Amino acid sequence: MTFTIEQNDPQSQARTGSLTTDHGVIQTPIFMPVGTAGTVKAVHQRELETDIKADIILGNTYHLYLRPGLDVMRQAGGLHAFNGWKRPILTDSGGYQVYSLSNTRKIKEEGVTFKSHIDGSKHTFSPEGVMDIQRTIGADIIMAFDECTPYPCDYPYARASMEMTHRWLDRCITRFDETEGHYGYTQYLFPIVQGSTYPDLRRQSAEVIASKERTGNAIGGLAVGEPAEEMYKTIDIVNEILPKDKPRYLMGVGTPANILEAIGLGVDMFDCVMPTRNARHGLLFTTEGIMNMRNEKWSRDFSPIDATLGGYASTFYSKAYLRHLFKAEELLAGQIASLHNLTFYLWLVRQARQHIAAGDFVSWKNEMVVRLMQRM
Amino acid sequence: MTFTIEQNDPQSQARTGSLTTDHGVIQTPIFMPVGTAGTVKAVHQRELETDIKADIILGNTYHLYLRPGLDVMRQAGGLHAFNGWKRPILTDSGGYQVYSLSNTRKIKEEGVTFKSHIDGSKHTFSPEGVMDIQRTIGADIIMAFDECTPYPCDYPYARASMEMTHRWLDRCITRFDETEGHYGYTQYLFPIVQGSTYPDLRRQSAEVIASKERTGNAIGGLAVGEPAEEMYKTIDIVNEILPKDKPRYLMGVGTPANILEAIGLGVDMFDCVMPTRNARHGLLFTTEGIMNMRNEKWSRDFSPIDATLGGYASTFYSKAYLRHLFKAEELLAGQIASLHNLTFYLWLVRQARQHIAAGDFVSWKNEMVVRLMQRM
Ligand SMILES: [Zn+2]
Ligand SMILES: [Zn+2]
Repeated sequence: MTFTIEQNDPQSQARTGSLTTDHGVIQTPIFMPVGTAGTVKAVHQRELETDIKADIILGNTYHLYLRPGLDVMRQAGGLHAFNGWKRPILTDSGGYQVYSLSNTRKIKEEGVTFKSHIDGSKHTFSPEGVMDIQRTIGADIIMAFDECTPYPCDYPYARASMEMTHRWLDRCITRFDETEGHYGYTQYLFPIVQGSTYPDLRRQSAEVIASKERTGNAIGGLAVGEPAEEMYKTIDIVNEILPKDKPRYLMGVGTPANILEAIGLGVDMFDCVMPTRNARHGLLFTTEGIMNMRNEKWSRDFSPIDATLGGYASTFYSKAYLRHLFKAEELLAGQIASLHNLTFYLWLVRQARQHIAAGDFVSWKNEMVVRLMQRM
Repeated sequence: MTFTIEQNDPQSQARTGSLTTDHGVIQTPIFMPVGTAGTVKAVHQRELETDIKADIILGNTYHLYLRPGLDVMRQAGGLHAFNGWKRPILTDSGGYQVYSLSNTRKIKEEGVTFKSHIDGSKHTFSPEGVMDIQRTIGADIIMAFDECTPYPCDYPYARASMEMTHRWLDRCITRFDETEGHYGYTQYLFPIVQGSTYPDLRRQSAEVIASKERTGNAIGGLAVGEPAEEMYKTIDIVNEILPKDKPRYLMGVGTPANILEAIGLGVDMFDCVMPTRNARHGLLFTTEGIMNMRNEKWSRDFSPIDATLGGYASTFYSKAYLRHLFKAEELLAGQIASLHNLTFYLWLVRQARQHIAAGDFVSWKNEMVVRLMQRM
């Protein structure tokens, strides 16, 4: 994996780059659609490729481990072969889902014991085990096993948790470095900065993570309920320490405004369920702001969903038709809205790339964060 | 509308033909995907066009009348403009849904009073009203308002109902012929043969319907629970009387075997919710038989869903992946299965067309009705 910075914005920390993997090149800044159980919900693989033009998608280790399970994954030849997605894939470590979805989880130094949300069966995730699982899933980029602290989180807990995350990281690195990919291409491990919203902990964690000199680095434990300003402040603190010549991945973020602000703070990679989850609830992100498609006001608006955005979903279907589909609870509603929202998110990061290259990123961003977040 | 018979099968009543409408040519025999509320469930319009290659789709008058309603339909410029489907559309009369979905319906000579299944509001469908509604929806082919008798149905009820359907037909014709389409293209009215499974009633009804000399004719009241043999016998009786030079539409039928047998009896047009409804439940029709995708047996079968069928859904995705999506209750499961099943149904009628043209329809059909209905 090579990461080449192409352009640095003189007025902010924003930059454009290219991250090369065995499954192709990722142009940064990039948004990665979330494919929880090996599928980006309601979206066909060719739509991801042709309409959304995603460079990379996510898979969730927790979900894939439980279903279809590692035997199927291994026999399939990994997730790429299983779901037919030929471009890069990143898997999370499963930690976040263990904390948020499973029952009666117990976090110990050795790892986390939890019960499946599907059938109640008991499982353990350890740093070593999670490396092995992600080797078997076969993602191009795999994430270290960490504890994602909730917000708010008291200082002693945040510090102790961060320190355990650092110890877990060493175990992840040891296991990762003594094993190989199963499917003939190279995988890369990204460590994760934690430390809640405490500046000294974040600095300490960023120093530790930077010292590991891995191919890329991630910022976790944000977008968990803290005010946006606290998130931006934390990103700024962390990015001063994380190496500039390596990709920085901000996990689980966020709204269009969050993404643009974080790009300005030097973040290169993003993922979030928001575009697909909101889509299924009828909330659309557009070039003019946020639309609630269930509103009566769209019932006779026969104009395209978003002509400026372009693309199939956004120009072929009208607002009135999509509104009708939501009211009638038709499956096509979620399909159109998901396709639209993801097309929008990829458009957004591509636009950011262009404006960084053109040298007017900050003024463009300041205009967009207002426009894109207004309710239509 | 012109209907040209291209080829008659010497060994059966099967024939190939072309039905020309203002929205394009329909090659018969044809299967028409059901687009209940202005959407073929889980299928994008471009998928209908490019992958499934549907010549014509259905809309349901009952559903569209209740939601989005006629005001929206009129302002949109009709259903074609509303949902973006540029090829022919056929609408049913709404009668079937009134009988099966709505509460406390009352059938009188004047028409049917019913309560909406959505909000309980009270409505009346009369023969004249239903013509007006279908004029407003703007389908290319609109159906007469009839009573679809249940099975079994005693003889006196079947006769009285059939006679009322005939009186309603005269009112439909009067209203239809004294009105015009709203959107600049021509609409055509198909009357419907009723009479339950009573040969004398069916003959009588077919005579009446034939005597109206409309552009095409339909056979209703079948596939409502009667044995397949009774259905075939009834079709045979009716088709001896319905004019040979006009398209014959068998409403609501059916399985692949039903369709092939009915083609052999001289039917040209079909519709059924089976391919899409079964798809959402994990039942796939394939060139080798019927697959229940929830079965454990597919969990490690990484071969394409149906390589012989061809097309995106059936060759891009594997059985194991689709099985995983159904187990995980992912939306993409229903999307892939619906796309596959409809592709299969259109493949089936195209194959029938080719075998009629090649002169070996009956032997091919006899082989296929066994193979396609076996459980894999
Ligand atoms: Zn998120
Ligand atoms: Zn049916």
